[in-house]
Amino acid sequence: MRILAIESSAKAASVALTEGGALISQYYQASGLTHSRTLLKMAEDLLSNLELTVKDVDAVAVAKGPGSFTGIRIGVAAAKGLCWGGDRPVIGVSTLEAMAWHGADREDVVVAPAMDARRGQIYNALFRFDAGRPVRLCEDRAVALEEIVAEAKKAKKTYFFVGDGAKLCYNRFLEAGLPTLLPPEPLLFQSAWGVAKAAEGMTPEPGFDLAPNYLRLSQAERERLERERSEKERG
Amino acid sequence: MRILAIESSAKAASVALTEGGALISQYYQASGLTHSRTLLKMAEDLLSNLELTVKDVDAVAVAKGPGSFTGIRIGVAAAKGLCWGGDRPVIGVSTLEAMAWHGADREDVVVAPAMDARRGQIYNALFRFDAGRPVRLCEDRAVALEEIVAEAKKAKKTYFFVGDGAKLCYNRFLEAGLPTLLPPEPLLFQSAWGVAKAAEGMTPEPGFDLAPNYLRLSQAERERLERERSEKERG
Repeated sequence: MRILAIESSAKAASVALTEGGALISQYYQASGLTHSRTLLKMAEDLLSNLELTVKDVDAVAVAKGPGSFTGIRIGVAAAKGLCWGGDRPVIGVSTLEAMAWHGADREDVVVAPAMDARRGQIYNALFRFDAGRPVRLCEDRAVALEEIVAEAKKAKKTYFFVGDGAKLCYNRFLEAGLPTLLPPEPLLFQSAWGVAKAAEGMTPEPGFDLAPNYLRLSQAERERLERERSEKERG
Repeated sequence: MRILAIESSAKAASVALTEGGALISQYYQASGLTHSRTLLKMAEDLLSNLELTVKDVDAVAVAKGPGSFTGIRIGVAAAKGLCWGGDRPVIGVSTLEAMAWHGADREDVVVAPAMDARRGQIYNALFRFDAGRPVRLCEDRAVALEEIVAEAKKAKKTYFFVGDGAKLCYNRFLEAGLPTLLPPEPLLFQSAWGVAKAAEGMTPEPGFDLAPNYLRLSQAERERLERERSEKERG
């Protein structure tokens, strides 16, 4: 299976092409330029430099959330656009499951993808490697960092943090005297390679079926609900 | 310091841009297409998608060998061309020193970059991390795999292999019952990120001073020397 993968859930953006699970090309950028300007151009350049078009891939895979609302929307829209243009199916994967591929296959390690969800929370899930693949230990969740610290104290494992919230967690763990690890810099943040690995073996679906998974309400939705509630209370 | 780095010492080719040591962008390809067609296009695309030109970087860094003779020549020529066109200085780094950055900062680990040098040999050097940087334990060398096996038996460390010869060494170590590790796939082969990290802090020099370091004679040179020797013997 030849997969074109897209990742834009946080500050970094990347695209990758894998074939039968092997990484053929990856293009990564964490410049601060907006994904809406850079992402599709990266996908076009990557395909063209491989002498391929979207029609040559079996599926387009994308990180569908959780993550930055704008980032996820741009990634999902780009994937849908590419699928529509090339008449290709799509595979939406959990951002956190894709990130888990950056972890380490070690007995004593729990792989803990971590995204800074603001408001004192971390988007997180836990994994351990089994036969070379990350296996889920819990569902995707928005959780307080102190809750992860409390869990780790009981688990007595080394937490291997990955993602745009990894350094935050790593530093807190060092402070708390808990064993913790980070990957080398090219694997620190989310990557399209992880998205492709997580998509491998999943069944592609029609592009129009793909919906983002925000895991939490957006600021606009939260504020509307609060407004409605307080209006109701005032009667 | 803003560095544009180039790596083309084996089958994979990559370009990267770092700023103050941080990875801003990396573009990697291991497609089998010739570097002379893909490498400069990747550098141009990467700079243009960052809204930069060669004139905006402080130096161009390149893996100057050891490695594939053709790959090294293409990389060094590309670096010289970019430096000449943009009036920028160059930093040539050891391919093996760049690869060492893919290793792990662990007390029990020796980082062992390994390139398949054919003719039963491995291009190799040994490193250990100290304060987050790989530190050299020996010079770049062309060495028989069995010699590395013999060394490792004495050293009683886990050999962490990196590079296009890493799987070959890893499998031989497993066979010999020796502890060994490989990085995740995006860090398995040589990378321009490693080149940029190795170049950081080195003094740039004028592009025309840069010369490849092949470490071994090319096939054409070996054959000429053998021809000359046998002609001499025949008197």
